[in-house]
Amino acid sequence: MPPSGFVEALQKAAVPRHESWYTYSENLPESRAIVSETLKAKRGLSIEPEDIFMTNGGMAGLSICLQLLAGEGDEVIIITPPWLGYRRMILDTGAVPVGVPVHPITFDLDLEAIASAITERTRAIVINSPHNPTGKIYSVPIIEQLASLLTTASEHYSQPIYLISDEVFSRIVFDNRSCPSLVQFYPFSFLVYSYSKILIAPGQRLGYIALSPTMPNREPIRNAIYVAQSVIFGWSFPSALMQYALGDLEQVELDLDYLQQKRDSMVKALREIGYKVEPPEATFFLLVQSPWQDDCAFAELLASHDIFVLPGTPQEIPGYFRMSLTANNDMLARSLPKLQAAMEYAMANFPV
Amino acid sequence: MPPSGFVEALQKAAVPRHESWYTYSENLPESRAIVSETLKAKRGLSIEPEDIFMTNGGMAGLSICLQLLAGEGDEVIIITPPWLGYRRMILDTGAVPVGVPVHPITFDLDLEAIASAITERTRAIVINSPHNPTGKIYSVPIIEQLASLLTTASEHYSQPIYLISDEVFSRIVFDNRSCPSLVQFYPFSFLVYSYSKILIAPGQRLGYIALSPTMPNREPIRNAIYVAQSVIFGWSFPSALMQYALGDLEQVELDLDYLQQKRDSMVKALREIGYKVEPPEATFFLLVQSPWQDDCAFAELLASHDIFVLPGTPQEIPGYFRMSLTANNDMLARSLPKLQAAMEYAMANFPV
Repeated sequence: MPPSGFVEALQKAAVPRHESWYTYSENLPESRAIVSETLKAKRGLSIEPEDIFMTNGGMAGLSICLQLLAGEGDEVIIITPPWLGYRRMILDTGAVPVGVPVHPITFDLDLEAIASAITERTRAIVINSPHNPTGKIYSVPIIEQLASLLTTASEHYSQPIYLISDEVFSRIVFDNRSCPSLVQFYPFSFLVYSYSKILIAPGQRLGYIALSPTMPNREPIRNAIYVAQSVIFGWSFPSALMQYALGDLEQVELDLDYLQQKRDSMVKALREIGYKVEPPEATFFLLVQSPWQDDCAFAELLASHDIFVLPGTPQEIPGYFRMSLTANNDMLARSLPKLQAAMEYAMANFPV
Repeated sequence: MPPSGFVEALQKAAVPRHESWYTYSENLPESRAIVSETLKAKRGLSIEPEDIFMTNGGMAGLSICLQLLAGEGDEVIIITPPWLGYRRMILDTGAVPVGVPVHPITFDLDLEAIASAITERTRAIVINSPHNPTGKIYSVPIIEQLASLLTTASEHYSQPIYLISDEVFSRIVFDNRSCPSLVQFYPFSFLVYSYSKILIAPGQRLGYIALSPTMPNREPIRNAIYVAQSVIFGWSFPSALMQYALGDLEQVELDLDYLQQKRDSMVKALREIGYKVEPPEATFFLLVQSPWQDDCAFAELLASHDIFVLPGTPQEIPGYFRMSLTANNDMLARSLPKLQAAMEYAMANFPV
């Protein structure tokens, strides 16, 4: 359920305050100003309102960036395990997704592997930090090295390799961590954000694209994004209501302490049962090692106990499964005996 | 301003009735059922829920259909004067828009001209009925002849010429007319609808694509639309709130009698001043002959009197301008002395 204050914000914004309240709303100056101020206040980023483009959700933002940057014959690097939608979105531009695995132990970016994956056809790289499903936040030194290698490669091939920075989990962080934005470290970069995580309301479609404050040659890029929003994507802006609610929605607070307490108690309980799991730095997810190598079989076993998890194989991280922390304490507590029964069964049996 | 009941419907739908209220909402079965029932009740169309695709507005519906049907090297026929967005949307698919003017006196479809415009490269034709800006509703006999010529041409070139039927004004009709849907007469057709006209709330992005009940080979088309909605357009569905409000919004009534009374009094008053104008059969618009041949100059003259109209030239109907009937009676009454002053000036002067 969305956090307290969410429904009230929507109901308040539903009441017109002037005659053109419900007219076509695009990149409203009020929305851009709020996003710009919030990026400054919450993430220390200085991005001009004119470099912010309101999208009806994070997926629209991603798809707009990909269609802008990639086409037939191009390559786009993604980090694996990837969010499930990247490959399909890239293929739909005509380009080929090139997967580069994270480090298998630390889950950090493998910079050497990224450097090796770059070719003359590489148009863009998609980085997701905090990373779904590993919960990893990439550190400033790693980001700086990534920026440096992308700059070198761009110079080598005499064309920029653009960075799409998917930061939809940037506000779902634990232990008072902060999540550095990649767009602060690399000029040719696009920040893609969605409010669906912090508001736990993906059905309401509210997000944005923000250009790096150092993006070169930004005027044609601004124009291209606007054409994509208005024409190609057929008016892909958030609804008037969500844009008018934005100021109030920025005041809505997700209870991160509660989420962190759920993370800690679940990690502890899972470990006691015998599962191998590390506490994530961010996101809603626990990435748990599957007791069976065949994670899909184990996910089916869990499903037979009414526990629904995402097996690792379809998300390109075999041997793991992903659990969500968005359930409440009661539901999580009720899941533990079932997780224990599944573990006991798994230890005593081979997958069928 | 939206009609009475609109704000209440949104506020009611904002309150979650179950835990997954604000989760990802796509083509919700409830929405499809409501649309299917309404098409039956209000327009006599039998369209299965599975053939209805909820879009975040009519433009998204149009863009999805065009991107599905047309590409590099193709041609798409549009009727001129066209809605301002068609050409750009078609060009963005890689195809070429081919304009066919309506009959200059009756504003009816020029079937001979349409037949002549069809080539082996024609992939689709976009028809807008009721037609913006002429206010014309195409009659059943004309539609039947159009369907017949499209069938003949499709057989001749051994591939279907698809019809995109833009029916966004189908409920804004005068004199108790009904608006026949083209999808009832031609199998290879897509109905595109938007609620932005009947609700006077284009900022809220609610519309749909419906397949003709006789569409051949519909399964791959259904899949292609769903992939466009979910992947290519980055989750281009209406917000959860608008989908949950849909049932109530279908009960919201736009006061068509009031709109018709404004049409009648404005047509009468404009004629008394000396303007040449025919009462439209539908839409929010009056298409008025410009006293100066240069309609842009006359629109500027009107703007200097604080009357804002769309000149005909950019909408490809030179010598006319388009007035909106969405202003209230007071505003329309206040506009008349200004329209009279502009007419008197125009009669006494040449355009500067």
